[in-house]
Parts: sequence; C-alpha cells; structure tokens
Amino acid sequence: MTADVGHRVRKTSRRMADGREIIYFDDTEPFADRSAVDGRPLGPVAGGSAEMRYDPLTGEWVAIAAYRNDRTFMPPADQDPLAPTSPGGFPTEIAEASYDVVVFENRFPSFSPRAEGEPGAVDGDPLWPVRPAFGRTEVVCFSSASAGSFGSLSVSRARTVIEAWVDRTATLGRIDGVEHVFIFENRGRQIGVTLPHPHGQIYAFPFVPPKVARMLDMARRHRSSTGGNLFRDILDAERRAGTRVVASSEHWTAYVPAAARWPVEVHVAPHRDVADLTALSGLERDDLARLYGDILRRLDRFYEGDDPLPYISGVFQSPTRTDRDLFRLHLQVFSVLRGPGKLKYLAGVESAMASWVSDTTPERTAARLREVA
Amino acid sequence: MTADVGHRVRKTSRRMADGREIIYFDDTEPFADRSAVDGRPLGPVAGGSAEMRYDPLTGEWVAIAAYRNDRTFMPPADQDPLAPTSPGGFPTEIAEASYDVVVFENRFPSFSPRAEGEPGAVDGDPLWPVRPAFGRTEVVCFSSASAGSFGSLSVSRARTVIEAWVDRTATLGRIDGVEHVFIFENRGRQIGVTLPHPHGQIYAFPFVPPKVARMLDMARRHRSSTGGNLFRDILDAERRAGTRVVASSEHWTAYVPAAARWPVEVHVAPHRDVADLTALSGLERDDLARLYGDILRRLDRFYEGDDPLPYISGVFQSPTRTDRDLFRLHLQVFSVLRGPGKLKYLAGVESAMASWVSDTTPERTAARLREVA
Repeated sequence: MTADVGHRVRKTSRRMADGREIIYFDDTEPFADRSAVDGRPLGPVAGGSAEMRYDPLTGEWVAIAAYRNDRTFMPPADQDPLAPTSPGGFPTEIAEASYDVVVFENRFPSFSPRAEGEPGAVDGDPLWPVRPAFGRTEVVCFSSASAGSFGSLSVSRARTVIEAWVDRTATLGRIDGVEHVFIFENRGRQIGVTLPHPHGQIYAFPFVPPKVARMLDMARRHRSSTGGNLFRDILDAERRAGTRVVASSEHWTAYVPAAARWPVEVHVAPHRDVADLTALSGLERDDLARLYGDILRRLDRFYEGDDPLPYISGVFQSPTRTDRDLFRLHLQVFSVLRGPGKLKYLAGVESAMASWVSDTTPERTAARLREVA
Repeated sequence: MTADVGHRVRKTSRRMADGREIIYFDDTEPFADRSAVDGRPLGPVAGGSAEMRYDPLTGEWVAIAAYRNDRTFMPPADQDPLAPTSPGGFPTEIAEASYDVVVFENRFPSFSPRAEGEPGAVDGDPLWPVRPAFGRTEVVCFSSASAGSFGSLSVSRARTVIEAWVDRTATLGRIDGVEHVFIFENRGRQIGVTLPHPHGQIYAFPFVPPKVARMLDMARRHRSSTGGNLFRDILDAERRAGTRVVASSEHWTAYVPAAARWPVEVHVAPHRDVADLTALSGLERDDLARLYGDILRRLDRFYEGDDPLPYISGVFQSPTRTDRDLFRLHLQVFSVLRGPGKLKYLAGVESAMASWVSDTTPERTAARLREVA
C-alpha cells in the first residue's frame, strides 16, 4: 500500500505474533523493506472480555477492561517495548530493526475488535445496559529513538505522523460501529505515562465520547440561536480580541481559550471549516506540522528549569457519521503543571463535581507563551 | 449559639484576624470557652478578584482565582496551619489552644463573598460572559490532632462533624446566590492534598455544578419515562442484586455502583428519600457516623501494605433551591489508586474526552471491601 499525498509516505501493514496489526509509515527513501517477522511466543491478545456498562446516573458508558491492570508499567530502559528490535536484542513490539513512524494495536485495549460479549444488562436489570466494548485502540510511535518528543521531531517527520493520523482517522472511521476517532498524546511521568518512549494513542470509540457530545449540544444550541458555527465563531472572536493568541500561520491559529481551565492550555484551530484531519489539504498539514511543533517547544520553556512539561494533547474531530457539519476540527493541548514541580490535581471539585477552578488567568498564560517563542 | 440535636454540640462563631469567620463545634462537656483572639498581622483576605468565565464549548463556568497559586503547599510539620495554637507557639488558623471540630473560611477561596467584579464579558464579547465568583469556601477540621483521619475518629466525634456539615448545608444554603453546597474530603498526598492535617472542605457554589446538573437531567428523564426517582430505583436495584453491596445498616446501604468508574468506589445512600443532610433524623446521623467510618477503615485495608488509601469523598446533595424532590442525598467515596503504589491518572481519555475506562470490575471491588470488614 502506498499513499502519496504531497509528502511521500509509504504505508505497510503487517501482523504481530499474536495477530495484532502493525502499520509502518515510512518517509525515508529508498523505502526500507518491512518483512521482519515478530517471533515472540505471545499468548492470545487481550480484549475478549472488554465490556462497557451504562451509568444511569450520568448517561455515560464506562469501559471495563480488568486485564489492563497488568499492563507494562515503567519498564527498565533496556526493555523499551516501543523501540525497534535490534538483531539479537530484546524483542519489542516492533520486529523491524528501525522505523520512521509506526502504528500498532494496543496489547491491552480498552475497546477491542475482539470483544466477545453479547448485549445485556448487569444482573439482568434494565437500569444497567451492558455491551461488548467494541472498538480499537492503537499506539503511534513518533520516532524509533527512545528519548525525545513530538516537539523535537523534524517538520518532515511530524508531517509523517500527521499522515498516519489522517490514515487512521479515515480507516478506523470506516469500521462499522466506530462512532468517533480520538487521537491523543499523554506526555510525562507526572500524568502517569507508563512508557517514556515518544508515542501517542488512538481510540476508535463505539460511541461519541461525553466531551464531544457536550460540545455538539452547545454547537447545536448556538446554531439555532445565532445561525453560526460555534467553533468558528469562537476562533473569530479569539482572533478579533487577539489578547490570547499565541501564534498563527497562514492556515492555523493557536490561542489560549478565554475560559481556559488548565494552568497551561492552548487550542489550535484551522482557518478553514473542516470536520476532521482527513479534510486538510497538503499545505494545511505542512503548516500544522510546523505550528504544532512550535507550540510544543514553547510548552517546554513555559516554566523555568530543564524539565519537559507534562501535557495531554488531543485532536478533537467530528464524529465519524453524525454532525459533520456542526463540529470543527481543532487540537487542545494542556498541562496539569501549575508551577515548577507543582501539579494541579483533579480532586473533589474537579473529579467529583466536574467543576473547574483555574489558578491563573488565560491572558497570563498567553503572554508567557508569546514570551517563550 | 447552641444547637441541640440529640447529640449535644455547641456552635460558637468568631472572627479571624483578617475578618474571616471561624466556627467551633464543641462536643466535649463542660464546653470550653471560645474567646481566644487571633492576633496575627494578616493582610486583607483574598477573593476580591475571584471571577468566573462561561466556557461556550461546554456551557460550564470556570472559576478563576489566580491568587490561589500562592497557597500553602505542604508546610513543615511544626507549622501545621490547621493545628490549634499552643500558647507561645506558631500561630495557626485556629487561635484556640484546643478544639473538637472547627470550620473556617478558606484563606484562598475559589468562590468568595468578597468577589467584587461586575457581570460583563471577556473582551466585551457576548460569547464569554463573566461574573464575580460569588460564593464561599470553608475548611472543616475533623480533629485537633495533626495525624489521623475521618476513619479514625470516634463515632461521637464523627457525629459532631456530621452536625457541622448539617449546619453548613443549612446556613450556606440560605445565602442569596448560593445554588449548591458541596461537602467533600480529599485525603492523601497522591491526590495533591497540600495539608496533611485531617480536614475536609465545603464549597458553596453560585451555580449547580456540572456533575449534579447532569444527574438531574438523567433523573428528570427517568421520572418522565418511568415515574420513579432515579436515585431510589438505583438503590433498590443494588439492594435487590446484592452482588455489589458492601455493608448496610438500619438506615443506610453502601455499595459499589454497577458502572463504577474508579478502581475503588463506594456510594452510601440513605434508605429514606431525603434531599440533603439537613433532612436526616438524629438516628440516621448516628447510623451514618458508624457506617461511613466503617467504610473508610475498609478502604485503608483495601490493598496490602501500611499506606492509607488516598481518596476523594463527596456528599452529593440537592441544589439549595431547585429540584429538591428530584435529587436524593448520597455520598460517593472513590480512590485513584489502582494497585499498591499505582495511581490511575486522568490522562487523555478521561481528562480530554471525559470518558472513563475502569481497570477492574465493580464486583471484584465489592468482594474485596466485604473481605476486609
């Protein structure tokens, strides 16, 4: 399989020892052969028992994947499971001796194509519907080097990651039963990243996740009261005000939202109305690779000191089948660090009441992010 | 002021050096004099600039209290600001040389009666309404001892804390503009508790917090489709199923909910329909003091090892003015620890998408909590 989209990337799909799919996205020419065989004696892949239960108090589905509690937790550095496999060395998830960008199915999936259960109800009570947690979760390795981060990638390699995101959005979105594709990165030990190797994740959800559902409700109300698209109107208002704009380019603007809830929070929105990553032009993808990398590098300079900033970054996309004219692609990047070494914890007010208190102002955050350009 | 409610508690309200209110709830007879004067040279109390901004993407208010970033962070043990003030010693928030239970206004409030701003809009744009973050936040010290926890209180002292909660629910709920009173405890360094002294907190919110608003939506739908009260129907279903019931008493049942989202999670619900703590009878309060303490002690035995379990506990009450026949009082206690020393972090899926994945099953959690009785 070869996808030629301006930036030349070759896609090769292979199988891992336990049957999971692994997909190489190569940008280094001449393209390397991708025929290494994963010879590990792996047991059957987890996910058969993945289920989700409906919480009648909130109307939300809770995925239950008990086998995930055994997942790899901060392995020794010489056993990085996301590194390439050096000949004769520790066999990792990636059989090849090198790679550019690689995507593979998570060994401990929260949502799985292998979920086997039948729809039913907990204890037979209709208050508590249960379904198999059908879906798919993937790992995206940004680089074969065990250190580094998305922000330290070359623009060309970052662009390859974006091509992989586009491919996964399109491919996973076509699966029957997948309602939403969420691409994200958790970076930093302080937010519980169990593998330090630079990587992101993808969740193909069997439902529209609560946050997106909520945004769609708000966008629907906004459209019926003003006729406008909520996301575009917010972007226009931020550009007009300017006080929280961090950086902008021909096709994108990065800003701290007026009601930011995290100590560091940046939204990155395209200038053109698009539902998801697949609708971006080649130029828009190039431009995103540059601007997003720039923002991530500023995050690492946000506080004094040498520690990279822990962050969560998510690509907010339209549901795969519904409301594609209502939603509007954007990225949200935020950090839980409220000062050097000081974490903002999600305690009673946030975790129990879902209500946010910010310890800083969005304008102050934006000023600092402009300062560290 | 004396409140006699079966269990004898004397309430004494005083002022702190900066004008904040401090309220002693005494249960030790003969009642001590509470006339100590707070002589600290404190600057003016924070809160004047507290504001809240409306987030148009979610329809939620975000409180902004930038002065909170300077709040006390893990002080040295000999400077516990919640200890009583020993004569000649370090002057704390509590001027008295001893106390039973004491409540006082938070020095770094997220919502404040002193919030001075005028309603308006960020940058004058109607997309972003702003209001002063009017409200009140309080600290509740469970004990004058710097170590220990709610679970180690005597039943009688726990009952005094409940009397303080009842008093605050009633008193704060009568303030014009307070829409919801949330009583909670964050326990443990792992969830960011900045002061180890056993204490809880109270937020008097100027709006119904998002989680309660969501529950009310669900309860409204349930009533219109079944005629029943959602919270009662869930309690009845849990008691009928029995598989997740942890403990019960004459007036209360504690269970792990069928769609629990946390590694350890227990809901404690009264058998009688009541909107909030103020409606509980003396016997129901006694019974809660016993059962809730029992549950907290089981939490500390949940995992092998000597570390007390970090937890968040919240009293879910009806809004102060609306939907009092729809909501139903209950407590929710949960922990972010998914194994000894292993935290469940709220990363991309939870923090960005508000979607939960559980690493265990509710039935397994309930079985363990029964085992450690």
